[in-house]
Amino acid sequence: MSSSPPANPMNAPLRLGVCYYPEQWPRERWAEDARAMREMGLSTVRIAEFAWSRMEPSAGRFEWEWLDAAIDTLASAGLQIVLGTPTAAPPQWLVDAHPDVLPVDAHGRIKAFGARRHYCFSSPSMWAASERIVTAMAQRYGQHPAVVAWQTDNEYGCHDTTLSYSPAALSAFRRWLAERYGSIEAMNEAWGTAFWGVQFLSFEHVGFPVGQPTSALPTHAMDFRRFTSDQVVRYNRMQVGLLRRHAPGRPVLHNFMGLFGEFDQHEMGQDLDIAAWDSYPLGHVDTAATFLSETERQQWARTGHPDISAFHHDLYRGIGHGRLWVMEQQAGPVNWADWNALPLPGMVRAWTWEAFAHGAELVSYFRWRQLPYGQEQMHSGLHRPDGVRDVGGEEAAQVAKEIDQLTAALSATMLDTARADVALVLDYPSLWMAQIQPQGKDMVGFGVAIRYYSALRRLGLNVDVVSPDADLSAYALVVLPQSLHVCDRLTERLQDCRGVIVAGPRAGSKTAGLAIATPLPPGPLRSHLPVRVRAVESMRPGRAYAVRTDAGVTVGHSLQWRDLIDLDPTPQGQEVQVLERCEDGWPARVTSGRTDLHATLVNDDLLQQWMQDAAHRAGLQTMALCAHAPGLRLRRRGALQFATNHGPGAAKLPVPAGVPLVLGSATLPPGGVAAWVVSP
Amino acid sequence: MSSSPPANPMNAPLRLGVCYYPEQWPRERWAEDARAMREMGLSTVRIAEFAWSRMEPSAGRFEWEWLDAAIDTLASAGLQIVLGTPTAAPPQWLVDAHPDVLPVDAHGRIKAFGARRHYCFSSPSMWAASERIVTAMAQRYGQHPAVVAWQTDNEYGCHDTTLSYSPAALSAFRRWLAERYGSIEAMNEAWGTAFWGVQFLSFEHVGFPVGQPTSALPTHAMDFRRFTSDQVVRYNRMQVGLLRRHAPGRPVLHNFMGLFGEFDQHEMGQDLDIAAWDSYPLGHVDTAATFLSETERQQWARTGHPDISAFHHDLYRGIGHGRLWVMEQQAGPVNWADWNALPLPGMVRAWTWEAFAHGAELVSYFRWRQLPYGQEQMHSGLHRPDGVRDVGGEEAAQVAKEIDQLTAALSATMLDTARADVALVLDYPSLWMAQIQPQGKDMVGFGVAIRYYSALRRLGLNVDVVSPDADLSAYALVVLPQSLHVCDRLTERLQDCRGVIVAGPRAGSKTAGLAIATPLPPGPLRSHLPVRVRAVESMRPGRAYAVRTDAGVTVGHSLQWRDLIDLDPTPQGQEVQVLERCEDGWPARVTSGRTDLHATLVNDDLLQQWMQDAAHRAGLQTMALCAHAPGLRLRRRGALQFATNHGPGAAKLPVPAGVPLVLGSATLPPGGVAAWVVSP
Amino acid sequence: MSSSPPANPMNAPLRLGVCYYPEQWPRERWAEDARAMREMGLSTVRIAEFAWSRMEPSAGRFEWEWLDAAIDTLASAGLQIVLGTPTAAPPQWLVDAHPDVLPVDAHGRIKAFGARRHYCFSSPSMWAASERIVTAMAQRYGQHPAVVAWQTDNEYGCHDTTLSYSPAALSAFRRWLAERYGSIEAMNEAWGTAFWGVQFLSFEHVGFPVGQPTSALPTHAMDFRRFTSDQVVRYNRMQVGLLRRHAPGRPVLHNFMGLFGEFDQHEMGQDLDIAAWDSYPLGHVDTAATFLSETERQQWARTGHPDISAFHHDLYRGIGHGRLWVMEQQAGPVNWADWNALPLPGMVRAWTWEAFAHGAELVSYFRWRQLPYGQEQMHSGLHRPDGVRDVGGEEAAQVAKEIDQLTAALSATMLDTARADVALVLDYPSLWMAQIQPQGKDMVGFGVAIRYYSALRRLGLNVDVVSPDADLSAYALVVLPQSLHVCDRLTERLQDCRGVIVAGPRAGSKTAGLAIATPLPPGPLRSHLPVRVRAVESMRPGRAYAVRTDAGVTVGHSLQWRDLIDLDPTPQGQEVQVLERCEDGWPARVTSGRTDLHATLVNDDLLQQWMQDAAHRAGLQTMALCAHAPGLRLRRRGALQFATNHGPGAAKLPVPAGVPLVLGSATLPPGGVAAWVVSP
Repeated sequence: MSSSPPANPMNAPLRLGVCYYPEQWPRERWAEDARAMREMGLSTVRIAEFAWSRMEPSAGRFEWEWLDAAIDTLASAGLQIVLGTPTAAPPQWLVDAHPDVLPVDAHGRIKAFGARRHYCFSSPSMWAASERIVTAMAQRYGQHPAVVAWQTDNEYGCHDTTLSYSPAALSAFRRWLAERYGSIEAMNEAWGTAFWGVQFLSFEHVGFPVGQPTSALPTHAMDFRRFTSDQVVRYNRMQVGLLRRHAPGRPVLHNFMGLFGEFDQHEMGQDLDIAAWDSYPLGHVDTAATFLSETERQQWARTGHPDISAFHHDLYRGIGHGRLWVMEQQAGPVNWADWNALPLPGMVRAWTWEAFAHGAELVSYFRWRQLPYGQEQMHSGLHRPDGVRDVGGEEAAQVAKEIDQLTAALSATMLDTARADVALVLDYPSLWMAQIQPQGKDMVGFGVAIRYYSALRRLGLNVDVVSPDADLSAYALVVLPQSLHVCDRLTERLQDCRGVIVAGPRAGSKTAGLAIATPLPPGPLRSHLPVRVRAVESMRPGRAYAVRTDAGVTVGHSLQWRDLIDLDPTPQGQEVQVLERCEDGWPARVTSGRTDLHATLVNDDLLQQWMQDAAHRAGLQTMALCAHAPGLRLRRRGALQFATNHGPGAAKLPVPAGVPLVLGSATLPPGGVAAWVVSP
Repeated sequence: MSSSPPANPMNAPLRLGVCYYPEQWPRERWAEDARAMREMGLSTVRIAEFAWSRMEPSAGRFEWEWLDAAIDTLASAGLQIVLGTPTAAPPQWLVDAHPDVLPVDAHGRIKAFGARRHYCFSSPSMWAASERIVTAMAQRYGQHPAVVAWQTDNEYGCHDTTLSYSPAALSAFRRWLAERYGSIEAMNEAWGTAFWGVQFLSFEHVGFPVGQPTSALPTHAMDFRRFTSDQVVRYNRMQVGLLRRHAPGRPVLHNFMGLFGEFDQHEMGQDLDIAAWDSYPLGHVDTAATFLSETERQQWARTGHPDISAFHHDLYRGIGHGRLWVMEQQAGPVNWADWNALPLPGMVRAWTWEAFAHGAELVSYFRWRQLPYGQEQMHSGLHRPDGVRDVGGEEAAQVAKEIDQLTAALSATMLDTARADVALVLDYPSLWMAQIQPQGKDMVGFGVAIRYYSALRRLGLNVDVVSPDADLSAYALVVLPQSLHVCDRLTERLQDCRGVIVAGPRAGSKTAGLAIATPLPPGPLRSHLPVRVRAVESMRPGRAYAVRTDAGVTVGHSLQWRDLIDLDPTPQGQEVQVLERCEDGWPARVTSGRTDLHATLVNDDLLQQWMQDAAHRAGLQTMALCAHAPGLRLRRRGALQFATNHGPGAAKLPVPAGVPLVLGSATLPPGGVAAWVVSP
Repeated sequence: MSSSPPANPMNAPLRLGVCYYPEQWPRERWAEDARAMREMGLSTVRIAEFAWSRMEPSAGRFEWEWLDAAIDTLASAGLQIVLGTPTAAPPQWLVDAHPDVLPVDAHGRIKAFGARRHYCFSSPSMWAASERIVTAMAQRYGQHPAVVAWQTDNEYGCHDTTLSYSPAALSAFRRWLAERYGSIEAMNEAWGTAFWGVQFLSFEHVGFPVGQPTSALPTHAMDFRRFTSDQVVRYNRMQVGLLRRHAPGRPVLHNFMGLFGEFDQHEMGQDLDIAAWDSYPLGHVDTAATFLSETERQQWARTGHPDISAFHHDLYRGIGHGRLWVMEQQAGPVNWADWNALPLPGMVRAWTWEAFAHGAELVSYFRWRQLPYGQEQMHSGLHRPDGVRDVGGEEAAQVAKEIDQLTAALSATMLDTARADVALVLDYPSLWMAQIQPQGKDMVGFGVAIRYYSALRRLGLNVDVVSPDADLSAYALVVLPQSLHVCDRLTERLQDCRGVIVAGPRAGSKTAGLAIATPLPPGPLRSHLPVRVRAVESMRPGRAYAVRTDAGVTVGHSLQWRDLIDLDPTPQGQEVQVLERCEDGWPARVTSGRTDLHATLVNDDLLQQWMQDAAHRAGLQTMALCAHAPGLRLRRRGALQFATNHGPGAAKLPVPAGVPLVLGSATLPPGGVAAWVVSP
């Protein structure tokens, strides 16, 4: 359309995109919008993920004309299209004919039609209808040259919809159990029904692990979580299978939502070509990241927390086998947090570059234009409801120009993402275990993992967030901040690891079925560290123990959690050294060979010291970034070192003398980004 | 009965009354109580509003004898009677025969018989039974000479009973929608079902806007709120119609409850002759006024907040077309707040005089005597359960004497209430919009309106709280603190206004259907102020921006909410001036012609400065009352200037030299009231 | 088994025991465990209380072999066995055949099988099945020589299971009402249905006092609480009757749970021989004792509150007619509090000795060995899951040795528990009344009673916590901290009392049916103190009045609650003296004859002064223990004075010169206990 060469070429290593809803705008506007997208430097547009009722207005009757036209209009403008399957929004005719589609909450209340995600993953009707619409859609557009990728559904689990307590879910759960255990006797044994004498008579007698006078058996609860996760993974796998058949050669992705741990995203990732996620840094800080303190919420209200988005980039890059997209990038204030701050000027640009620094191939903004009606009417986009380009739009356009300049000066391979020096192991079953048996009320969720990640990142280290199945052999440093369960595969991987290993509290404490590891925690890690956790202590906010060195110097304090460790007698001569102790003598940190065990959570500064110590032993160089600015962070991608400043003050960058910047300036204002070349 | 001339004559401009329940006391006590009421100086007694089961012990069988006797006994003592229809307490036989009477909560749980207000406004059985009892009661007592007024029902909406999710309500909602939209296509279009693709198949397929995985469509929710309000208004209109037919010439009123906004009280007011409300200042401060800070709750625990009752007086005087009654006045500690403070000595008297200052014709105390049993056994009255006169009773008697003295010295017209200089516009649909889409968690309820009202009142200004339909042409100053939706009628009224207009944040931001106003907020107000709100920011408690003048002087801070304003190019030459800005440059207050727009909420002191500035431009004189005492407030009625001191210290009153006080003293203690003549 | 003389002989006045679950461990381990118990010095083992499904795997089919073997194995080791009836864990076959067994919550949701306590006390099926299993069990083991006592069920009321809203409960409640009132007219009269006109048509029309738009009639609620309590007591009485018939001569006990007040434990105590309770000091401090401040929770996190366990010892010694057991004693961190602290070293020993000091015959630890699976997998025991003895086990063994040494040096009668000098009256119906009509949000639960108890104990006084039915004639000081209802029996008992009486706020304020006492509170106490409570005031946290002496000296402050007292004219010349007043003149403390009335709650220091004043007037000596250490407490048992130090610092004990210690040392470290002989 435009005769000038398109900015942000479609196969470039750094690409920009946008989410667009043709069904919400007059058809005459489409071409104009498409042209403006290209002009802004966007190459990619995601569409259709809530338009089921427009594609299939009644059962089996399809209306493709509007979508044909939309796709053609966008394609003619030179845009690449990502098509979303629309299953997050089942039409009313489906719910009406098949009420079993609707999910049921833990109190037995059916969730109603009228918003989105009103379906149960175990509903056979939903499964059949999903197969039909995905097949039809993929048959029609699967080989369209402009449709370059497919997204399954939208944000599985959003609005607390992973867990469903419907009759369909109950039948499926019982079948799942029967397959897992074979006999009810085996299940009773595995669940430990000798406790409180809750023997189940048959699989048909098993209910949900909710609604009892007090908590259900932990293994009952854990199996329900595993089953539920399996249902989501299976449902997605069905969609992926249909897409692969009818849309050959097009990568399939899902857009995950941050801080969601209800299903096993590593497992789902096995079926995907790319992992995408939806990045809303301000909503996370204000509301979703429940582990933040009020001070932190205020401190990072306008920039986002300096490590939460980065953590997700590193996580989903791993889940996507190295292929990371940001499918929805916050472009201005959102509507869904308790309070919705205005991004600091520059942050939309900074978030975009930060995603690229962490290896993103594409950053796609949500959304092209703010819709003046509907639940998200206060969710801003690149344009205001009156069509004028908004701040986020200006910053996106700036990024597009910067990409052109930067890539023109570099060879493509200089932007290849390499393995990081540090691996942080994360697993979803451990999150479920912590939620089922927290033992300390605040010991749930992603908080511990992110605090460890943050400590590494404040040292200037590059981190891969990896699954328990990842090859750890080449990492200099491997960190297990929340691995309550160390599975057999991880045990093997750790055996192969030649680097320094750091395990956090509770590591290896649980079996796969959520019992205490035998003979005692840290379970499988005892081959690295011959200690036994004889008991644990959780401390309410405000309680803390001083942490001291052998010389009696207080270096920080222990909080939230303590594993009380006995050093085992070690016939093999494997020696365990206590590095610091709590004021009452219990070990705070122990080490043996190349493995450290943190027997307690500690304050952020001490945790950073501990990680620095481990990194140095692993032969890694570190840098105390907070000395420059509390919100300064670095990330390397290929030959480039990126820096982002989340504030509050300006930061003097640690650029080696004589090295010119290829982006930004050496004194980085809050909201600023910069980059320089660090290796050929 | 008493041979001495009755105090507080029945047609005087300032009258006292009491709430009485003959059905709860031995018949032999009635005459004695009636005599004591007259002796205390009370002229009016309200009865019968919960006695349905005593009047109609089974369907269609009426027992009037006891009520005949009660009315006659009270009337013989010279008391005027206000009769309440008893529909707030449907008898068990009705519920038993017609379970559809019972309301249903948002979770689908039927609310049970056994307290009060257990009925759904959409129940046909309730409607029919209500018609029967109201008709029967009105036929019997409608022309009784002592029955001088009628009250419909009691505190519509109390105990969260406006919204009902019963099958009857669902049917009625669907009919209401069908009438409103004509076709389902029109409804889908109006609701914006293109968002998330939630097209409804027919009106019969529409459900309640609750129970979805996430929030329902805003217009769906808004229509349900409008429908619900209509149901309450219609139900009341039915009662009023029957009363007008059978009780000709008697004014009809309803006793509203403070801080309730679930139905449109301006609409209901159209059907009433008098608006009464139930004034419980301490319950409001402790519990109901959720927008108060903990400091404010403690500061005003024993006096009530200095502006909340006054706000309601001014609100209901408007709803009552100038006729205001306080039907229930707190007379001592109540039982229903989280904590129930003892009124400061003098406050029962002060609240009474404050009501009169704001134009009340009647102040009626709740209740004659504390009942030692039942849910309200800890609710005090004018007398203790042992029959001894309580502090509130003493103060009521004092007021009666003061009324005699004061009115003896004045002509009746000197107490006529005149229009105030300032109009504060309040509308109920905007409250619903804020609740459905708060955008900032604390941006709901009456808080913003009352903070604006308080700022005006701290300046010594008299305020009318008016509906969007009110004639604004003669007001010097018109304030719109929470008009999210500026309807066509208000737009016209503002065109006619010759005074200064002050609009608060979010003014004009929404259409009637709860979408963003086009092209952008402030919507219809753009003809006064050519600006566009490009985005909004809500700030969690603790976040604030400094507010500065052009000269860079910090004058206060911005909190809770900011509208980010672009100044439009103005071909017509209409100029917009930015009066103050936030530290990051966004306008805090702008003005154009005679209209100010507050682009942000600010701290109380700055808000007072802003209102003072506007008042001065409007030609109004102001007085900084808090310089005298934080709790000092003035209100003018006719020729009298009243003053009330809510404490904490004594206040030196701004009485012009040489003007004698007709009530109280020039140095006013906490809990004191005073009055002086300000014009002939 | 062991040839050395067993420590801790089975009939000694101080005995140790343990809770054991043979069904959870391999049979081959039983004998070894039994031997180790004896070696540790334990004499008693409680078993079987959750093993119903193991004893009766299907309806009427019993499997005793395993239990025979377990009992024989334990008995052969010389252990005494306490058998628990297993009714806290109804098997699935029972629930499956008779769904009416399941309880229903206040929202109408059935509580599910899958944990424990999933039964409704009103279920006829549960009653019948309970009779069958208890009979069968008692027939089999009732005369077994090693089975020395029986426990009914386990922790009635745990997990909020006292109140059930099932159809069975509703039928039983209606029958209960019909029996209580005879006619519906009498019930309507008693309930005060004249208020809000809620006349009930028949007993069959009465529902539960929940689910109404606002609170139900107080007497309706109160009757439901009395009915519910009766159901629990009757159910237990059924079990006791069967046990007495089939296990003659064996004492029957129940293990109550601390801080539970939902049923009348004094009534249940009438049917028991021994009252046992389950003592979890750290869980109480962290979570269950909701009346504690955050500061208190942190202060006593590792030791338990110095008075809460003691209060329960004194309470249950009374309920058990002098026979007190601690059936479950916390032996390490538990799993069920929000945060689970590590006991300070020595506390397991200290708690044990403190229980003995308060008259316990037996302290039985929970549990022998931590179970690595199930809901309580993080609940520690005397041994770790790997079988190694844990800290609690070491301390238990130490206590066993100390018992031997101490008892060897004393005659048995020197450990007889005598009546204390002070009686603190506690009644359960008053707790229900406070919960139904709190009037001040924080005026519920055991908080007030425990604060009074604590004040007495900080003065070094020994206290009996007694029922309203207890003989008060010989006590020097009688304290009524929370007797909202003073029943006829208590009125008589107080008449017989020759000591000083101290009544707290609200004393005597309510009738048995939860109406205001006539003519006014303090109701029956007016014969002791001719005053009238004309009104009450509750104060939200942060509000306080200074309390002053006649001389105007401020001695403390009034908080939470004030009774506003009028002094009655006293024809009989009985004089009431006001000892202190609030700053606004209302009496804070009044006295007449030998009775004090506290008209308000006050800060802890002032309360201690008031109790000291009363104690001195009663002729008792006191000692300001907190001058030694905030956590130091004394308790006398027979000839021995025990001391326990809950910290935080070491305490110099008030041991008379020349008196040697028989336990511990004169300077007591935190967590320390000591004892010395105070009389022959």
